Amino acid sequence: MPETRLPIITLTTDFGAADHYVGAVKAAILSVSTSISIVDITHEIPQHDIMEAGWILLNSFLVFPSRSVHVAVADPGVGTARRPIVVSARNHLFVGPDNGIFSFLYDSDPPARVHAITATHYMRSQVSNTFHARDIFGPVAAHLARGADAENVGDLIEDFVRLDLPRPIVTPEGLVRATVAHVDRFGNVILNVTQAAISALMARTGAPAIVAMVNGVRVTRLCKTYGEGPGSAPFMLFNSSDFLEIACNQARAVDLLKVRRGDPVDLTMVQQASQ
Amino acid sequence: MPETRLPIITLTTDFGAADHYVGAVKAAILSVSTSISIVDITHEIPQHDIMEAGWILLNSFLVFPSRSVHVAVADPGVGTARRPIVVSARNHLFVGPDNGIFSFLYDSDPPARVHAITATHYMRSQVSNTFHARDIFGPVAAHLARGADAENVGDLIEDFVRLDLPRPIVTPEGLVRATVAHVDRFGNVILNVTQAAISALMARTGAPAIVAMVNGVRVTRLCKTYGEGPGSAPFMLFNSSDFLEIACNQARAVDLLKVRRGDPVDLTMVQQASQ
Amino acid sequence: MPETRLPIITLTTDFGAADHYVGAVKAAILSVSTSISIVDITHEIPQHDIMEAGWILLNSFLVFPSRSVHVAVADPGVGTARRPIVVSARNHLFVGPDNGIFSFLYDSDPPARVHAITATHYMRSQVSNTFHARDIFGPVAAHLARGADAENVGDLIEDFVRLDLPRPIVTPEGLVRATVAHVDRFGNVILNVTQAAISALMARTGAPAIVAMVNGVRVTRLCKTYGEGPGSAPFMLFNSSDFLEIACNQARAVDLLKVRRGDPVDLTMVQQASQ
Repeated sequence: MPETRLPIITLTTDFGAADHYVGAVKAAILSVSTSISIVDITHEIPQHDIMEAGWILLNSFLVFPSRSVHVAVADPGVGTARRPIVVSARNHLFVGPDNGIFSFLYDSDPPARVHAITATHYMRSQVSNTFHARDIFGPVAAHLARGADAENVGDLIEDFVRLDLPRPIVTPEGLVRATVAHVDRFGNVILNVTQAAISALMARTGAPAIVAMVNGVRVTRLCKTYGEGPGSAPFMLFNSSDFLEIACNQARAVDLLKVRRGDPVDLTMVQQASQ
Repeated sequence: MPETRLPIITLTTDFGAADHYVGAVKAAILSVSTSISIVDITHEIPQHDIMEAGWILLNSFLVFPSRSVHVAVADPGVGTARRPIVVSARNHLFVGPDNGIFSFLYDSDPPARVHAITATHYMRSQVSNTFHARDIFGPVAAHLARGADAENVGDLIEDFVRLDLPRPIVTPEGLVRATVAHVDRFGNVILNVTQAAISALMARTGAPAIVAMVNGVRVTRLCKTYGEGPGSAPFMLFNSSDFLEIACNQARAVDLLKVRRGDPVDLTMVQQASQ
Repeated sequence: MPETRLPIITLTTDFGAADHYVGAVKAAILSVSTSISIVDITHEIPQHDIMEAGWILLNSFLVFPSRSVHVAVADPGVGTARRPIVVSARNHLFVGPDNGIFSFLYDSDPPARVHAITATHYMRSQVSNTFHARDIFGPVAAHLARGADAENVGDLIEDFVRLDLPRPIVTPEGLVRATVAHVDRFGNVILNVTQAAISALMARTGAPAIVAMVNGVRVTRLCKTYGEGPGSAPFMLFNSSDFLEIACNQARAVDLLKVRRGDPVDLTMVQQASQ
């Protein structure tokens, strides 16, 4: 059964649920076209937390069909010299402020292309100094979703802002200094290390097991599901986004481990994860 | 004016609003088809609270058009032996884990039909062990919404998991031991007793009035609206889902009565609800 | 590229995110037609806070295309003598209880027209006493969105309920006694004074600068963006809805100023806003 696919715009912001801000952004999008499917990823990004917004988007954008348009807003510099941008990467489009919020895309292969938005005909007729999500990002996203070319929003730029994202440090001995990247609603502690990276390391060191040291607690078990976790003890698993995660079975690992985003976690490849 | 009706998928989960999980489920649905209306019922089910998810769905699904597809997820056993299922009942379809979350449907007449989902061509191409809402429930719901037959997702099963739902106990004298089934945002205390059950009881006992004993407080008045409630005293009413509810006029009955879900409430049919 | 525009219904309620209420309203709308774009403005209006619901709607409805239908519900009197109404104003339609929630529209030019809803064929087949959003407001909004005429929902009324909205008081000397109208998620303190009103006052008094006295704190600086705010000191700006706002750069003005909605703020027009 053939069908017309609606274009998709996703929203990831720090606007919260209580104000009129999210509704106003959707109004601006729908004023360009109502034939767009708008999907909220989250509006509960902590205020101005650019890193968290990027993380949430990194974990979700690839599930959407190619050429979806993703608006991300955590924007303390709204209205100042920071530019509004469109990023084209991995067959998706991203619209938001040039403050590093899309840094997780900038090492993509082929390279991301970044355009500074200057084409006023893609914006609302009046652009405020304090609400670019409504006046620029939303409408530009709507035009892109309807088929406009990113090349037409403004000049290609090379000097976009790049955050210094925490990356795992690997020693020649195969010790990994990882970082807590996110703590989710269930209290799961997610590290900035992928399954692919761990597999490569295991192959290189010939050590097929892994031990994590988290705030003084030694975690040795690697499970495939939450349900097979041993009692209330923490264990590791590779989560649905392929990141290494420390979890407890029906309990909050974060409360037990008392860690926060940015805290270090040391991983060692070993022959056998002894008890 | 004839129009094409879009199929509807509703979502009831314990995913919360801050993570990427809800967005990822919608992405998986929209990857199957964008011609689906996705409606959030709630994502604020307390973690792993299967009973609450069922209650919320019970109170809302019949308002949707027939053959809507309802995804419900509170799923501590994700990835383990518990099966993903499709339930066909009361002209609606339900998709989620076989952990009792759909128990409220299993005494429907005609009987609910339950299929274990095994047809991988209705799932995402890679199925994770920890996110079946994205990889199985969402895509299967999308195919059902687009017209796929529940018979085709997998075998009909009879040994599905049934929760022991609290049910009101009625004595021959017409005393009812009810249970607090839910406390809503407004502090209203909702019991697991329907208007139909109370009417039948009144007819049988010939006693046309009702008295509730809630945590030592005697509630005698039955109102039709919140606005006619007497000052700040608690009263009863039959709510918009036809359940008996104890409420206060512009105040929180739950704070006054200090009850919680699962607490007992005794109901007596009487000749006259005295002052 | 010509396209059919979908009608839009927005929802602004005090229903919260945890219950089934919002889902049920959407179900009632979609039962009338699935060819409607439903947009949540917010469901986090404090319980029964009619004034806040009106404020949120005032700040967002004009961003939507003309003839959008806006449902607003904070409705302690549901089921009592208070009437359900449709308000036609400024080329938009509004549906909700006649309790003053639409007072912000009643001085529009041309005058708002208000109809009491009595046409049962626009309602759900059974109307409960406690959930008019599902049984009346939602379905009526859906019929209006699909093209029904407000004239047909019931009689035109003149005796609708009007809240006594706080308005800034201006003395002949140009002193303005304003009121805190809203505090947003970022802690910004928004006053009930528009840029137009301040501009007119500046023109009349010949004083081009402004000083605000907020709970004993003197605020003298007027900025264009949050980013140019001076360190952590509070400053004024005209926000994206053209209201005067007191803010801090990446800090919460409300915590510093310790004000709440309804608190007074005195504004003086001066020759120069000295340090």
